[in-house]
Amino acid sequence: MSGNTFGHLFRFATFGESHGPAIGLVVDGVPPGLGLTAADIQHRLDRRRPGSSRFVTQRREADAVEILSGVFEGRTTGTPIGLLIRNTDQRSRDYGDIAAKFRPGHADYTYHQKYGLRDHRGGGRASARETACRVAAGAIAGKVLGAGIAIRGAVVQIGPHAIDRARWDWDEAARNPLFCPDPGVVADWEAYLDSVRKAGSSVGAVVEVVASGVPAGLGAPVYDKLDADLAKGLMSINAVKGVEIGDGFSVAELSGEDNADEMRMEGGGPVFLSNHAGGILGGISSGQDVVVRLAVKPTSSILTPRRTVDVDGHETEIVTKGRHDPCVGLRAVPVAEAMVACVLADHLLRHRAQCGG
Amino acid sequence: MSGNTFGHLFRFATFGESHGPAIGLVVDGVPPGLGLTAADIQHRLDRRRPGSSRFVTQRREADAVEILSGVFEGRTTGTPIGLLIRNTDQRSRDYGDIAAKFRPGHADYTYHQKYGLRDHRGGGRASARETACRVAAGAIAGKVLGAGIAIRGAVVQIGPHAIDRARWDWDEAARNPLFCPDPGVVADWEAYLDSVRKAGSSVGAVVEVVASGVPAGLGAPVYDKLDADLAKGLMSINAVKGVEIGDGFSVAELSGEDNADEMRMEGGGPVFLSNHAGGILGGISSGQDVVVRLAVKPTSSILTPRRTVDVDGHETEIVTKGRHDPCVGLRAVPVAEAMVACVLADHLLRHRAQCGG
Amino acid sequence: MSGNTFGHLFRFATFGESHGPAIGLVVDGVPPGLGLTAADIQHRLDRRRPGSSRFVTQRREADAVEILSGVFEGRTTGTPIGLLIRNTDQRSRDYGDIAAKFRPGHADYTYHQKYGLRDHRGGGRASARETACRVAAGAIAGKVLGAGIAIRGAVVQIGPHAIDRARWDWDEAARNPLFCPDPGVVADWEAYLDSVRKAGSSVGAVVEVVASGVPAGLGAPVYDKLDADLAKGLMSINAVKGVEIGDGFSVAELSGEDNADEMRMEGGGPVFLSNHAGGILGGISSGQDVVVRLAVKPTSSILTPRRTVDVDGHETEIVTKGRHDPCVGLRAVPVAEAMVACVLADHLLRHRAQCGG
Amino acid sequence: MSGNTFGHLFRFATFGESHGPAIGLVVDGVPPGLGLTAADIQHRLDRRRPGSSRFVTQRREADAVEILSGVFEGRTTGTPIGLLIRNTDQRSRDYGDIAAKFRPGHADYTYHQKYGLRDHRGGGRASARETACRVAAGAIAGKVLGAGIAIRGAVVQIGPHAIDRARWDWDEAARNPLFCPDPGVVADWEAYLDSVRKAGSSVGAVVEVVASGVPAGLGAPVYDKLDADLAKGLMSINAVKGVEIGDGFSVAELSGEDNADEMRMEGGGPVFLSNHAGGILGGISSGQDVVVRLAVKPTSSILTPRRTVDVDGHETEIVTKGRHDPCVGLRAVPVAEAMVACVLADHLLRHRAQCGG
Repeated sequence: MSGNTFGHLFRFATFGESHGPAIGLVVDGVPPGLGLTAADIQHRLDRRRPGSSRFVTQRREADAVEILSGVFEGRTTGTPIGLLIRNTDQRSRDYGDIAAKFRPGHADYTYHQKYGLRDHRGGGRASARETACRVAAGAIAGKVLGAGIAIRGAVVQIGPHAIDRARWDWDEAARNPLFCPDPGVVADWEAYLDSVRKAGSSVGAVVEVVASGVPAGLGAPVYDKLDADLAKGLMSINAVKGVEIGDGFSVAELSGEDNADEMRMEGGGPVFLSNHAGGILGGISSGQDVVVRLAVKPTSSILTPRRTVDVDGHETEIVTKGRHDPCVGLRAVPVAEAMVACVLADHLLRHRAQCGG
Repeated sequence: MSGNTFGHLFRFATFGESHGPAIGLVVDGVPPGLGLTAADIQHRLDRRRPGSSRFVTQRREADAVEILSGVFEGRTTGTPIGLLIRNTDQRSRDYGDIAAKFRPGHADYTYHQKYGLRDHRGGGRASARETACRVAAGAIAGKVLGAGIAIRGAVVQIGPHAIDRARWDWDEAARNPLFCPDPGVVADWEAYLDSVRKAGSSVGAVVEVVASGVPAGLGAPVYDKLDADLAKGLMSINAVKGVEIGDGFSVAELSGEDNADEMRMEGGGPVFLSNHAGGILGGISSGQDVVVRLAVKPTSSILTPRRTVDVDGHETEIVTKGRHDPCVGLRAVPVAEAMVACVLADHLLRHRAQCGG
Repeated sequence: MSGNTFGHLFRFATFGESHGPAIGLVVDGVPPGLGLTAADIQHRLDRRRPGSSRFVTQRREADAVEILSGVFEGRTTGTPIGLLIRNTDQRSRDYGDIAAKFRPGHADYTYHQKYGLRDHRGGGRASARETACRVAAGAIAGKVLGAGIAIRGAVVQIGPHAIDRARWDWDEAARNPLFCPDPGVVADWEAYLDSVRKAGSSVGAVVEVVASGVPAGLGAPVYDKLDADLAKGLMSINAVKGVEIGDGFSVAELSGEDNADEMRMEGGGPVFLSNHAGGILGGISSGQDVVVRLAVKPTSSILTPRRTVDVDGHETEIVTKGRHDPCVGLRAVPVAEAMVACVLADHLLRHRAQCGG
Repeated sequence: MSGNTFGHLFRFATFGESHGPAIGLVVDGVPPGLGLTAADIQHRLDRRRPGSSRFVTQRREADAVEILSGVFEGRTTGTPIGLLIRNTDQRSRDYGDIAAKFRPGHADYTYHQKYGLRDHRGGGRASARETACRVAAGAIAGKVLGAGIAIRGAVVQIGPHAIDRARWDWDEAARNPLFCPDPGVVADWEAYLDSVRKAGSSVGAVVEVVASGVPAGLGAPVYDKLDADLAKGLMSINAVKGVEIGDGFSVAELSGEDNADEMRMEGGGPVFLSNHAGGILGGISSGQDVVVRLAVKPTSSILTPRRTVDVDGHETEIVTKGRHDPCVGLRAVPVAEAMVACVLADHLLRHRAQCGG
């Protein structure tokens, strides 16, 4: 109930702070017999890893994952998979400033209000470091989903700069360090982010994740709608302030005629002529691409002093030094992909439980 | 796991289809000793009831709620509260058209794909009728939260027409049938909606809910963030396609400097100078107003024929006759308020469990 | 978390007090397409119903069940099944004595300590009336399990009088009102129980339930072992004070050689040569009969005065008048069968989720 | 749902096989501010550790626990506590015999039937090694319960040899390696167990756990009765085949008059004159000692050959060599104490959630 567990049938529980000895997780409910190696997970972790380009934090973590259980002779056994990632870059330094002051935009104040005390080192549990566990879980979720389901993310807006969707190219998104699917704006975005970084500032972003090959029928009709669980999973990622499915907020302006995804027969089966719904109707997948977007706020750690108070009730200012991301939205891409994978894997098993096959 | 239960410590399970004999719910985890009468719940149900103005469906349901258990001599006993709402307006009519054809925008196709069969009468479980149970649960959640926490909703955009936030007036929102908080646009909105209704069309909307008086400290740091649970609860409402907290999607364009809610001391305690965060930092309430918005798609039942297929794989067209809402976003207001109340009540109890007081 | 829900994938939530207007339940997770009518459930309820012989309480309840949702044209739809049982025998009478005094052996004192108040009418939520909901859920669980799995219960000891297992006859157990499988002791038991009843006294019993046809592989290895979930389900029945699997408490005296169920091949498949394990090894079903026993304490409502205290802290005495069972162990038989069915149905779906097939 | 998690508000998830690199767990929901060090946990683990006397397996594991998160400057932070115990005694040896044959009394056959494959090294997940995680969780649960609640276990029967309860002495139970509370039988028990051990045989036992100082009001009225959750927790321990509360199975022979625990006033408060109920009425603690007993079957690994079959369907025999316990009931004592602590801690938090204080 303290909420460090995600999912029901495909379920993982995580632990760890950014400046403690390690982070890790237990993944339960994985079907037996799936091929799984540490390299499968490492590959995903490396996409999210800090220090991979000048646009992400220069904090260096090997993020080397160790499988502690649940895999035997290269296959899952059906028992829980314990994963451990040691923290290696724990610079010894003075946290006095952060220990006493509440950083605006961070969780310092709310943790202090909730728990009466907090581990102030590097954000503790609220650190984005926790998202490495999500990515590891997502790698295993991907095995549960199988090769027929592809989940890919991209950054579609950075600050005020949006992509031109007509130029969408998944290969481009996989190539540049900004996860940008529009080859026409990559250079501009890089210049823009460089200026933000040099100013010690930060900027927000919008990320889009598309899951292709999802069979019709996953989800549940009322509270555990597939889109509701996706919304929860994505909104639970650090710094996310909005989630939308399909046409999202723009549906407000649509008429019922425009919003309806009409159907025809094609190749012997029903097809939709559009996908305003983002692949989900009544909380259940329709067989179309599942399309979600999330808004990521700008990194709260910036070099410009901000007014705040300290734990003793004195007014003060704070500058958050350190090695931070000018746009955390970039690193949100593999994390969002992972959460989508985890939600789909959970619902795949839930569907199989109730409806078979 | 089939998802007809919501919440953990404040938890309710619902049942019922729009054209069966009744809908109802079991609310569990309610603290003992709270004053509760059927009238407390009825009052909330009446706000959501069909037939209350020309802008909502003319289907007439008394929506009279009966308390079956868990209340003794006007006070909750701590045991589960069973609630029953009989369906009274079940017109006998021919469902043949709907039974065989998949209505675009509805859950017909996905239910059929999931379950292999479906109760086609009036949308079955996917009917908005289910939301009456949410409102009933929300009324009890309100008792758990107590008088110090106020949860109010309003429609802030209808089709392309947004309010002027400078004119925001909660009393106005409580007065007009459109839940519109801007007295300057009510007449225009009514004229607009009349035209939509007369055209047999429909339009989407954006709803905003504000919870005031929420103490700091509610929520959880990682997967069960307060905003994540709000996102799930709101996205699970029929027709919702997007949810945002605080500045929501507009954070993408903000700089870290602008997004930070700075703090000062005032009256002996810390205050925030802005509320871009929407009252939640790191998944935990900050003591500021909790602000959420949701996008509601246009009603899928419209009078213009849409192309579709039937269960036997034939191409066809369908017109959804019946008594429907030109803008379901209106009736989403009390439902969204209820879901916010339920999420907060759950987290209030969860916080008390772990942190006391 | 207040514990009025049982199961995970096959899950039901119940409500209702014995002297309120109704009791009922919501059963969720039922696979679609199963044949189900009210008569299927009523048949089970009738086995447990009060007033069916002179050995059970003469309180008369029709226990007529109404299906409110989740079934369409005689088949389950996959949506939650709401069930309602109206209370019809609510004698208007003076509860003053029970209201103020704590009945020994009853939950009066502990409810009062927990909730600070209680619904004293007829035991409120602690009444055995609640078990009707378990039986209704069990009837649906039986549909999930299918005709290949048979679950039958019997009383194997009543007071100091045990059966001779060599004479075990399931048909006999179905025939006599004592659920006694030993034709050699039925007459003696009836005479014994008559004397207990006439003395206004009560006596305990041991019930045994056997599930045949359970496939190997149901269960989970660690905390949710099949036997652990059976133990929980059975211990949650009113008045149960002990649960054992297979040889149960007598294993304490066994050697490892005697306790081992050896295996041979027979008819092309492995068979066990004994069943000390009661059909469960390492928390997972072995394919043998699942055998459980439960100890039921004597009815606490007796005609001999017992010393107690009242809510104001005065010492007093109490006699619990009313219409009670001389041996609640009898009525525990259909309830225990139902709980076994519910646990097995839940694990059947859980197994299908993780392991397919 | 695969059942490697225990508890709701005080919750832990475990992982690890006996012959993998490590076992471990994540404990979530722990209130902030509790003093906790690795030594607090290690102290408990040492009581359960193999190799501590000639009566337990000579397998030697340091069982050194490492706290990976959730504790800062000696106090819990309210975030999840990750614990790791490396396996150090993984003898390299040939598992060929166990790999192919199903050991009677073990979970080999059922795991194989469930998962289609299994990690045969040392029993994999079904190994008693897993119970170290339970003991670690129990140590933390003890911190949640506080010093006012004492949980102590003892062996009350070993093979056919029971203690004389009139000589019960908790200090004695803490002193001898058999956890025997009766100084009059310790020497006899040691001689008996030596003979069992030398014969390469094994024997069962009955363990009793008593929790003193448990406040009235913990538990829940229906499915999550305190005794139901205790039954589940204890039955989930390896080799346990029976659980009883208070008078347990002997209630079958009691009359209602004898079974009723009468009440009087003493020192200004109500007291019970007996404790047949074992401290629980209607699923809720009464304030008396909570008394539970569990039956533990004889160790299945014995030196006498047993008939079995192999994975290819051939009849064969097997002798389980290795370093095993003549009576696993001994090591069940600290494990059972731990599970009782975990159940009580969970219900303490659940009670605080619903009823405050």
